[in-house]
Amino acid sequence: MRLTLHTDYALRTLIYLSMHEGKLATINDISTRYDISKNHMMKVAQELVHHGFVTSERGRNGGLKLAKAPKDINLGDVIEKMEPDFALVACLSSGQKNCRIMGACGAQRFMNEARDAFMDVLRKYTLEDSVPNREHLLSLLLVE
Amino acid sequence: MRLTLHTDYALRTLIYLSMHEGKLATINDISTRYDISKNHMMKVAQELVHHGFVTSERGRNGGLKLAKAPKDINLGDVIEKMEPDFALVACLSSGQKNCRIMGACGAQRFMNEARDAFMDVLRKYTLEDSVPNREHLLSLLLVE
Repeated sequence: MRLTLHTDYALRTLIYLSMHEGKLATINDISTRYDISKNHMMKVAQELVHHGFVTSERGRNGGLKLAKAPKDINLGDVIEKMEPDFALVACLSSGQKNCRIMGACGAQRFMNEARDAFMDVLRKYTLEDSVPNREHLLSLLLVE
Repeated sequence: MRLTLHTDYALRTLIYLSMHEGKLATINDISTRYDISKNHMMKVAQELVHHGFVTSERGRNGGLKLAKAPKDINLGDVIEKMEPDFALVACLSSGQKNCRIMGACGAQRFMNEARDAFMDVLRKYTLEDSVPNREHLLSLLLVE
């Protein structure tokens, strides 16, 4: 069971930006710090902006910052927006209606119930909760 | 958020076998009924046998059958055994310890808590519960 790398990078980006409070961070900063593809990070950033978690300022001194305070960014909300789907099994995907027993199989209901329980846990937490020890995290990120 | 196709096929196989009570079903039967790759189905069957959900009889009249009654096959157990991992984000995977903020990031804990809530739901159900309407399911599978 996995989330996409896209969602994983989105969480890392938000955590990075929450360490930067007020200052702008560039895509280059973030991808370098985490040692991940700048190209992929660009797509992640675009989507974070699109969903209103992050704002972007253009220009030579431009960059990214959080659109809201970390305590106002709900983790369940981030994951719900960033994941392309929650089709745990093929029959739950809107484009894949090819399982012969669809409609008579009880597993779909249990999968949806399990997914809801999963999301309910994440909705209890915010970006602020993701940084239990700010100093430790700063030391690992070496944010100047 | 997705489970692997492997787990998906395992669930379909178990549901098929639960419709066949007592009789043996071949890999060919199952892959034909669901219109999925025989090669993939073979691997799924091997793993279901390995984990003790299914028994296999060799020979010309051989085939597969459930190793236990449907009510004794727990869905959480099936998913736990069939999924290669539950590394929702890269840092939860045993082979991927490359995220710079590992150890200082609270997201790992929330992900594990959410995964546990997911599995707790599935552990409430058995294979028997996956077949709420046996006649409807049989008509879709056209089991002779």
